[in-house]
Amino acid sequence: MTTCSVTFTPSDTAVAVPVGTLLNEAAQEAGLDLNMPCGGQGRCGRCAVLVEQGTVRRRSNLRLSAEDVAQGYCLACQTVIEGDARILIPPQEKIERRLVTDRTVAAIEVPLDYDPARDQVLAAYYLELDVPSLDDQTDDWSRVQRALRRNHGVERITADLGVLRTLGRTLRNAAWQVTAIVERGGWDDPAATPRLVDVLPGRQTERLLGAAIDIGTTSNVVYLVDLLSGKVVAEAVDYNGQITRGEDVISRIIYAGKNDGLGELQSLVMQTLNRLLERAVQRVRAQTSDIYRATVAGNSTMIHLFLGLPPESIRLTPFITAANQPPPVRAGVLGLAINPQATVDCLPGVASYVGADITAGVVSTGLDEEDKLTLFLDVGTNGETVVGMREWLLTCACSAGPAFEGAGVEHGMRATTGAIEEVWVHSESYEPTWRVIGNQAPRGLCGSGLITLLAELFITGVIDRSGNLNLSLGTPRVREGEHGAEYVVAWAAESATRSDIVLTKVDIDNLLRAKAAIYAGYTVLCQSVGVDPADVEQVLIGGAFGQYINVEKAVQIGLLPDLPWERFRFLGNTSARGAYLALLGRPARARIAAAAGKMTYLELSADNTFYENFMSALFLPHTEIERFPSVQAALADDHRATGEFVPREEFA
Amino acid sequence: MTTCSVTFTPSDTAVAVPVGTLLNEAAQEAGLDLNMPCGGQGRCGRCAVLVEQGTVRRRSNLRLSAEDVAQGYCLACQTVIEGDARILIPPQEKIERRLVTDRTVAAIEVPLDYDPARDQVLAAYYLELDVPSLDDQTDDWSRVQRALRRNHGVERITADLGVLRTLGRTLRNAAWQVTAIVERGGWDDPAATPRLVDVLPGRQTERLLGAAIDIGTTSNVVYLVDLLSGKVVAEAVDYNGQITRGEDVISRIIYAGKNDGLGELQSLVMQTLNRLLERAVQRVRAQTSDIYRATVAGNSTMIHLFLGLPPESIRLTPFITAANQPPPVRAGVLGLAINPQATVDCLPGVASYVGADITAGVVSTGLDEEDKLTLFLDVGTNGETVVGMREWLLTCACSAGPAFEGAGVEHGMRATTGAIEEVWVHSESYEPTWRVIGNQAPRGLCGSGLITLLAELFITGVIDRSGNLNLSLGTPRVREGEHGAEYVVAWAAESATRSDIVLTKVDIDNLLRAKAAIYAGYTVLCQSVGVDPADVEQVLIGGAFGQYINVEKAVQIGLLPDLPWERFRFLGNTSARGAYLALLGRPARARIAAAAGKMTYLELSADNTFYENFMSALFLPHTEIERFPSVQAALADDHRATGEFVPREEFA
Repeated sequence: MTTCSVTFTPSDTAVAVPVGTLLNEAAQEAGLDLNMPCGGQGRCGRCAVLVEQGTVRRRSNLRLSAEDVAQGYCLACQTVIEGDARILIPPQEKIERRLVTDRTVAAIEVPLDYDPARDQVLAAYYLELDVPSLDDQTDDWSRVQRALRRNHGVERITADLGVLRTLGRTLRNAAWQVTAIVERGGWDDPAATPRLVDVLPGRQTERLLGAAIDIGTTSNVVYLVDLLSGKVVAEAVDYNGQITRGEDVISRIIYAGKNDGLGELQSLVMQTLNRLLERAVQRVRAQTSDIYRATVAGNSTMIHLFLGLPPESIRLTPFITAANQPPPVRAGVLGLAINPQATVDCLPGVASYVGADITAGVVSTGLDEEDKLTLFLDVGTNGETVVGMREWLLTCACSAGPAFEGAGVEHGMRATTGAIEEVWVHSESYEPTWRVIGNQAPRGLCGSGLITLLAELFITGVIDRSGNLNLSLGTPRVREGEHGAEYVVAWAAESATRSDIVLTKVDIDNLLRAKAAIYAGYTVLCQSVGVDPADVEQVLIGGAFGQYINVEKAVQIGLLPDLPWERFRFLGNTSARGAYLALLGRPARARIAAAAGKMTYLELSADNTFYENFMSALFLPHTEIERFPSVQAALADDHRATGEFVPREEFA
Repeated sequence: MTTCSVTFTPSDTAVAVPVGTLLNEAAQEAGLDLNMPCGGQGRCGRCAVLVEQGTVRRRSNLRLSAEDVAQGYCLACQTVIEGDARILIPPQEKIERRLVTDRTVAAIEVPLDYDPARDQVLAAYYLELDVPSLDDQTDDWSRVQRALRRNHGVERITADLGVLRTLGRTLRNAAWQVTAIVERGGWDDPAATPRLVDVLPGRQTERLLGAAIDIGTTSNVVYLVDLLSGKVVAEAVDYNGQITRGEDVISRIIYAGKNDGLGELQSLVMQTLNRLLERAVQRVRAQTSDIYRATVAGNSTMIHLFLGLPPESIRLTPFITAANQPPPVRAGVLGLAINPQATVDCLPGVASYVGADITAGVVSTGLDEEDKLTLFLDVGTNGETVVGMREWLLTCACSAGPAFEGAGVEHGMRATTGAIEEVWVHSESYEPTWRVIGNQAPRGLCGSGLITLLAELFITGVIDRSGNLNLSLGTPRVREGEHGAEYVVAWAAESATRSDIVLTKVDIDNLLRAKAAIYAGYTVLCQSVGVDPADVEQVLIGGAFGQYINVEKAVQIGLLPDLPWERFRFLGNTSARGAYLALLGRPARARIAAAAGKMTYLELSADNTFYENFMSALFLPHTEIERFPSVQAALADDHRATGEFVPREEFA
């Protein structure tokens, strides 16, 4: 037996192994841990490593692009060592799930053309005031107005009582040298009377803070932004405190209708946001009262609860909001712990189930200025969908239900520590391998885990096109449970809950309804303008959940349209990014308002074609399988291969 | 002895008395009570009666005009019965002091040219909204906007959160037929975006309530006004609840500087106003939330305390307010218990001691459109004074101190029950007679009582021109007290306090300083524009106190200029009336702002001529007695007569 030496970098760990050893086995021998969620089947592509030097033989290049291969990448589980080699194991972060956690430096880039003097609603003006005397008894407020007029051309200005209440002391303590924070009209009305928001001692014109807020039903995000540079200077994320009062919008609306439920929910989200704001300002040595403007995105229910608007009519036919475009509000009135005189600008929504998160997303993804026919999807409870381009935008919400958020599924859970987020099923043994958030014993399955599990069960033949489980495969994983047939994902001994984690037929039916609703939604939108989902030139997937969807698996279950992978783009929190852009001032804020005005809402509950499309989509991947050619090809390959699988003869 | 029969009407009481009996003696005989504050000296004119029939002989017609005499009026104490007679005793109300009390029907008349459609900032629009359906899912707020646009031409409108929070339920409970209360821009900016203030079920366009508020240091007044008719529909008056924390503005400013003194004072005045508002709306079967606008007048300190603005710089050189022209505020922010979305518009002041009460007074008296050279006086602590006419207005405040309000005087008190409000001193016995508010045993002397007492003591020779008491008159009324010389107004046995009520030399000096300050104030204003106080064509006296001043007595002490009585006009609460006019909308409100802008403030503390004038005015009536010819004449008549006194030989 010929032995050869394999050195793994960057740790520079060397190991001697026989020729013909698989790279992943060599790594294991060297005590190195490679990601291998599909269990070494060569299907997930997660064990990619870079051959820096030496000779190897690739059995399969699945998931690697031609460019990857040219650079020297290979799949560790599919690559045989044929001589001494030097192998780079790339940083695991590239494939590790990003947990819901704070990051000090945000990835958002300032638009190149951002010009605060032109775009920004807020400005900070340094003033050296005349000192009052018996010859100049001008009152404090008029004195500030006079200096703003003379030195900064602010002809007319108003102020809230809160500023005037502290003005006198600030002026005197600062020896009449102060900085005035001025709101120069509304974003939509530069001609409106400016407003004095605050007066600070001395010269404080180096920084001017604002907050972009995204209120998700599950997670809340705060970006702290320096409005002068446009940069995100801190970011904070946490679960929405309302979760304890209901996981989805419908249960929150119901809760809001009880006694002081609305007040309680408003207070809960405010507590969450105020905590996030506090965390964010601490990172940059500021105070929350230094934040002089906030923009807020979120679905219509979240915006209602944030503002204390009763949401009850949102869930009752004909599904009407109190206000799709709420007027600006002072922070102090709401209890949002930024400067009490700061304007809180809630972005406009379109309908009860197409809210400000979607209009913000439309603009932050550039969909409203797009030349390609684009599908924008927020895969979540409400399944908000937009189809369109620069000239037109059509939108709907398709009531997918909370299955993809882990609710309505027996062992479903939110994407938090202990959730299985990815599952691979062996095509012969039907044994699963999975990856758990936080890398610990599993407690249940989150949305992305459910999608991959469903797809894997289907592709490996554990379930048929109707979602029925095949009880005759000879594996204990498929069995009759208390509530019918089920597949055991994790045995009690492996789980953190000390009981089996299963996916039941009932769960599968719920998931099928959810994916069918979303598929039917965008199909109806496309049909209503005479195009086919296959004509879509670009699919933008938004939402915190969206970024973790495995496209291949989502296509295999018929959730996403069967299009080349390069047409899909995952954009993460497009809603928060829209709030950020709106915070930068008039141009983006006006674009969001224009987008909201341009979006035509299609009410699916009043649409027969939606029901027909929904029924057809209740199969895997769809009644008309020809709509999913790649899935058809994968199934043709004996339930074991996807469209891109390389010939089987390369296996040993 | 010839007897004759006298019948008094309207009581139809007959009495038989000897010929030669005085009418007041006959009335007493008949058991009828005549007002006779001067004790029957024929000097006060208060016992005027009408001779309907019969023969009488008038000894004196003092205080009666030629017209009065022609009509048959005579003074009961100066008229001898010469045969059967029929005498009408006019209603006592004509001369009775009006107590601080509520009146259901106010005397204020609606300006003839009031046109709510043109002038009023508020409007009530009836709306019949389209009922929402799956084909028309317009949100509630947009639906209201649409109806306002289509049916009432309101192109653009905003709203506070408070309205939107109740909108949905109101619309649905009212079956989509509602009345929108709309603020059509600001009073100064009709082009500003209108604002939805409230939405009421059904058609409620018959009445639209507003409140005109006057915050006096002592008394607060609320006029409830129907903005559609312009009528005052209810009125309520009460003492300012802050009185317990200091009687004058200076002590309140000091109190405001302690811990939460400011918050406490604001809360106290708000409690008073809220009680008054509640009383007012109850009379017209309305609720305080039906009040959709308030205008507020008051001196600068009162406005600061009302708004919660720290007043501290008002009393410190160089006497600067936080804001002379505070921006409009929402009632809800202040805690004023009208509709929380209602605008509270505080009228503009000119300086620390010339506040909104004076600018409101300037407009409500018509001074700003006057062709005559006019002096407008608010005789109170601050002695606010305006001299001018249509083209120009000059103003000052002359720190009279609180002597005329009863403070700084040993037995001084506010004009409330038990206060001596008028005193007459017998020119030979030096015995006083007085009238007490509430017609009971006296507790002290209020401002008008002090003025008449000082004048009487001077005219009867009890004090000299420097205010020194003459201890050699042989009356126990003048004596050495614990703190120097004093005059006993009421003996312990007569008083409600069971101790002597006295006026001391110290009190007299305080009163002299107060009157000298006011005299010096308007004299400096006149001199600064090259006119003499004697050139003034009209003297307007405002303030609740002003209307009870006895002009003759005020002239005698040198407080008011010595001008013919017909040049004086007592206008009562000119401040409250100004607030009322401002509530009626743009024209008057704009006039008040224009007046505030036009008024040139003269700072007396920086003015040497003020000090010189003040020193010269510390005498009775003045160092240069020729400035007071009528007083000179009265003194020439052996200290017993005024300029109009009839020859003495008519006395028995």
